[in-house]
Amino acid sequence: MRTQTPPQNQTQLSHEVVGNIYPKKTATMRFTYKKCLGPLLVSGLTLLALFYAWSPGTSSVVDVRPRQGSPLQKLLNETILGIVSGYHNDIAYHIKEDVACRLALNTCVCLADKETLHLPFSNLLFPRAWAHNVSQAFLESHPDPEGAKRHRAQEYNSFQRRSYSPADELIIAEAGSPLQYPTQGVKVRPLKTIIIPGLGLKEETRSNHVVYLTATLGTFDVAATVDRVDVKGEGEKHMTLSSPLLSALNRQLQFVTYTNTVFHPKTADTVRFATEAHQSFFSIKIGHATVPKLYNSGSQKEYNISALVTIATKTFLRYDKLKDLIDSVRQYYPTVTIVIADDNKHPQPVTGPHIEHYIMPFGKGWFAGRNLAVSQVTTKYVLWADDDFIFTANTKLERMVDILERTTLDLVGGAVREVTGYSATYRHTISVEEGGEEGNCLHIRNGYHHVIEGFPNCVVADAVINFFMGRTDKVLQVGFDPRLSRRGHLEFFVDALGSLHIGSCSDIIVSHASKIKLPWTKTESQKAYDKFRYSLSSADSNISNEIFYFKDRFKCMTSH
Amino acid sequence: MRTQTPPQNQTQLSHEVVGNIYPKKTATMRFTYKKCLGPLLVSGLTLLALFYAWSPGTSSVVDVRPRQGSPLQKLLNETILGIVSGYHNDIAYHIKEDVACRLALNTCVCLADKETLHLPFSNLLFPRAWAHNVSQAFLESHPDPEGAKRHRAQEYNSFQRRSYSPADELIIAEAGSPLQYPTQGVKVRPLKTIIIPGLGLKEETRSNHVVYLTATLGTFDVAATVDRVDVKGEGEKHMTLSSPLLSALNRQLQFVTYTNTVFHPKTADTVRFATEAHQSFFSIKIGHATVPKLYNSGSQKEYNISALVTIATKTFLRYDKLKDLIDSVRQYYPTVTIVIADDNKHPQPVTGPHIEHYIMPFGKGWFAGRNLAVSQVTTKYVLWADDDFIFTANTKLERMVDILERTTLDLVGGAVREVTGYSATYRHTISVEEGGEEGNCLHIRNGYHHVIEGFPNCVVADAVINFFMGRTDKVLQVGFDPRLSRRGHLEFFVDALGSLHIGSCSDIIVSHASKIKLPWTKTESQKAYDKFRYSLSSADSNISNEIFYFKDRFKCMTSH
Repeated sequence: MRTQTPPQNQTQLSHEVVGNIYPKKTATMRFTYKKCLGPLLVSGLTLLALFYAWSPGTSSVVDVRPRQGSPLQKLLNETILGIVSGYHNDIAYHIKEDVACRLALNTCVCLADKETLHLPFSNLLFPRAWAHNVSQAFLESHPDPEGAKRHRAQEYNSFQRRSYSPADELIIAEAGSPLQYPTQGVKVRPLKTIIIPGLGLKEETRSNHVVYLTATLGTFDVAATVDRVDVKGEGEKHMTLSSPLLSALNRQLQFVTYTNTVFHPKTADTVRFATEAHQSFFSIKIGHATVPKLYNSGSQKEYNISALVTIATKTFLRYDKLKDLIDSVRQYYPTVTIVIADDNKHPQPVTGPHIEHYIMPFGKGWFAGRNLAVSQVTTKYVLWADDDFIFTANTKLERMVDILERTTLDLVGGAVREVTGYSATYRHTISVEEGGEEGNCLHIRNGYHHVIEGFPNCVVADAVINFFMGRTDKVLQVGFDPRLSRRGHLEFFVDALGSLHIGSCSDIIVSHASKIKLPWTKTESQKAYDKFRYSLSSADSNISNEIFYFKDRFKCMTSH
Repeated sequence: MRTQTPPQNQTQLSHEVVGNIYPKKTATMRFTYKKCLGPLLVSGLTLLALFYAWSPGTSSVVDVRPRQGSPLQKLLNETILGIVSGYHNDIAYHIKEDVACRLALNTCVCLADKETLHLPFSNLLFPRAWAHNVSQAFLESHPDPEGAKRHRAQEYNSFQRRSYSPADELIIAEAGSPLQYPTQGVKVRPLKTIIIPGLGLKEETRSNHVVYLTATLGTFDVAATVDRVDVKGEGEKHMTLSSPLLSALNRQLQFVTYTNTVFHPKTADTVRFATEAHQSFFSIKIGHATVPKLYNSGSQKEYNISALVTIATKTFLRYDKLKDLIDSVRQYYPTVTIVIADDNKHPQPVTGPHIEHYIMPFGKGWFAGRNLAVSQVTTKYVLWADDDFIFTANTKLERMVDILERTTLDLVGGAVREVTGYSATYRHTISVEEGGEEGNCLHIRNGYHHVIEGFPNCVVADAVINFFMGRTDKVLQVGFDPRLSRRGHLEFFVDALGSLHIGSCSDIIVSHASKIKLPWTKTESQKAYDKFRYSLSSADSNISNEIFYFKDRFKCMTSH
């Protein structure tokens, strides 16, 4: 131990780092080879036996069942309840309707918008939203509705308990507290040690100043000691620091450390910091930091589309259209990789440079194919294109890369131009309203949130058309649920809520091979495709209802 | 506005919820059909024109380039800096070595463990860790090392800015503050309104009590008004509340609302709550809540393995072994679905009930195949098995399902028994040490963290053997990087850090088809497989180095 002049920043202590996570082997032995073969053999065998018996790792046992909440957590909850259940209940108030009505009541009602226009064509000109009671639709056709409800509640309960983190709990800072402490931003990697920043005490002079620290998933210590401060419980879950000198105690508090001792890859420990008369709580986030997924696409001035983008598509019964897509792509991007997921009954070879063709079981489906294709992409970005799109001079992938490189967007949609000249961007906003036990309400509306600064033709939305470019790792993190076989588009964007920042640019345009076909001019393959794709199978709507009711836990869906 | 008796809980206001997110259409018209065809036509065309011109959504423009930090953020940073740069710098301290040495210095050194035993077989008995300087290895063989370094720094910078959230900033609560406020746990869905819980003021009586609220991504208002309290700035980003009566002000503070006005799917707003002399900061998390991904596997007493689990595998040049695997699975689980990713040059049909066979481009590779297989799974859990495993009576998948159902584990590995009788669980712990600009250090060691309570044969680790069951959605969220063609195992677990809670049970055992073959007894296919798989291609090690150096941003890797 040595005294030294205090450094500028309290967190800089000049010591070598020694990883202290793994148990160290500390036995040493000396011997002479020739004279002691016998003992050597015995020792060797003993060591061998020890080696097999010794498992690197502590022998501690930890409960990893979903945690209900430590005693400290319970104390925190009671304290907060005390604060929010309020005092001053005798003072009257006047409701401010236009604000109060915006508050969620956690009991969303499955209603469509009210009709505001009474014109014969109002439905066409100003499409109303309709409401679909998903709960009813799913449970009605279910052999055991009560069982299904119960099962969903169980699964949801399990999901909530697994996703629970003490870092999400409500904590309220007490007024007039003598304690200074960090309320946000403290984190530690599993089993490592940090200095807790910002601890302090500010109270009037007294004979002895005392503070207490308590944790559950780790222990406290001090990285340095200060004269005239008494520290009890170093290396334990409960530590007490006291001193007759307030300034000395505060100096000591600058060196308090926290060491995570109970391993968990991602959780938080609630720490209690208190005096006799006051207490405070704060979280220390514990967990492995996410390892980044950076893509090496070479550092060049212009965007190298082949190095940055892979085009992904799925094909079924439309090899002619697929060929047209590929040919059109090659006109503008001769070396970009195209990944094709193919679930035809009798797959034909699709070959060519930079073409990757994947054969799936027959009819495995739309979302399965999309998930497959994206799972094979090795570039930073993936561009989704339907197999009946045609690239034109307006299909500037560089523009999509540009906005993804320069903003926080994870995915950007373009526009699909029909033969009529009409371009669709299919922008939608999505919101979820809490609904309590019965499930939430999903609201989908045409439209967008706002224009993007610097990109006047682009907006932010929650869902876009099926021509988009996205960060590969983020798109696959959301995933395309392989249970959706034939229909499905918005389901991906519902799954993406809270994960993807989504944009839409109207000036990056791909053409749609003509859909306008007179019935007698359709080719055989066209007819087969239409029959397969557009036949309203009750199995399909059942799957859709199941996805919305069970998987996503909605009770209602309103949409245009 | 009406007065009413104050409810028990301040957050319960009995009003109907009216979604206020979308601009409402408020025009109404009356007309008579027969008499006014002319005006009708004109009106109709006007409406049509209006309809096309009117885009649902605000016309506001928002900057979505990675945010540097709002003015409020800067104020917060300066305040915190003031607090942590410390006072009492004149008070001396004594370093406590054994604690101080555990603190990370953000400059990890690429060193292997020191040798602690000097025995002839010490390397075998007590394997030392070796250090691999990934930076050096990658940059040495790179045509443009400076360019690569610069490009990685750019990509990482971009990644950091995109992942940044104000909710991660350090905030310190001031001691002796008259303010009461929530420090954690306040969240609002995009563009919605909440009551901010826990706001309060506790100061000595004075002629006027004043508090200020400031935000950046939203506005304040009050859901109810209280007599004798003056509120200025309702509906704005800065609101002031004042009253000569402290109790009235506190009652008013119970009704303060926050409305998010700048859309973002996942961010936080830093709110400043202050008096003249004191200030406090807290975060309101803004974002879509994640929609759950619940699986409907029927509510039954026993685990229905076919409904809950899909077996995924990849095959290459070993159809005979694959057949053995399938036959052995069918002995115990006749109807469980088996998904097979196949990148043989000349794929053979693999058929049978509940078999899904996927053909990939030749030699696309190991991780691509794993990613593909998992992307096709529609059940809650996916079991990974190599194509040369054999199921036995000890391969009880029910046990794996049990631990996944009852704990917070996302993935659990089993044991693979070799022909010799030796079972391997391949348990490893992984940690990452910060390294500054040059990249971090990755440490991989044999071993585990702790035993799991209630499951005496199971432990928690960071990596396990290639026989594991995991939650399908979580496994795919991590993903198997398709760039890793031939080798790779721990890379998945490195990508999983911070995402998956991983366990390993030694009593769920699968057998490994014998690998012990005398060279002259190997079949042609065996020889071809070994040649393909085990040939040390420099391309492979280059890809590995690139993954570790560039993608994961490591400079060093130490391992057993």
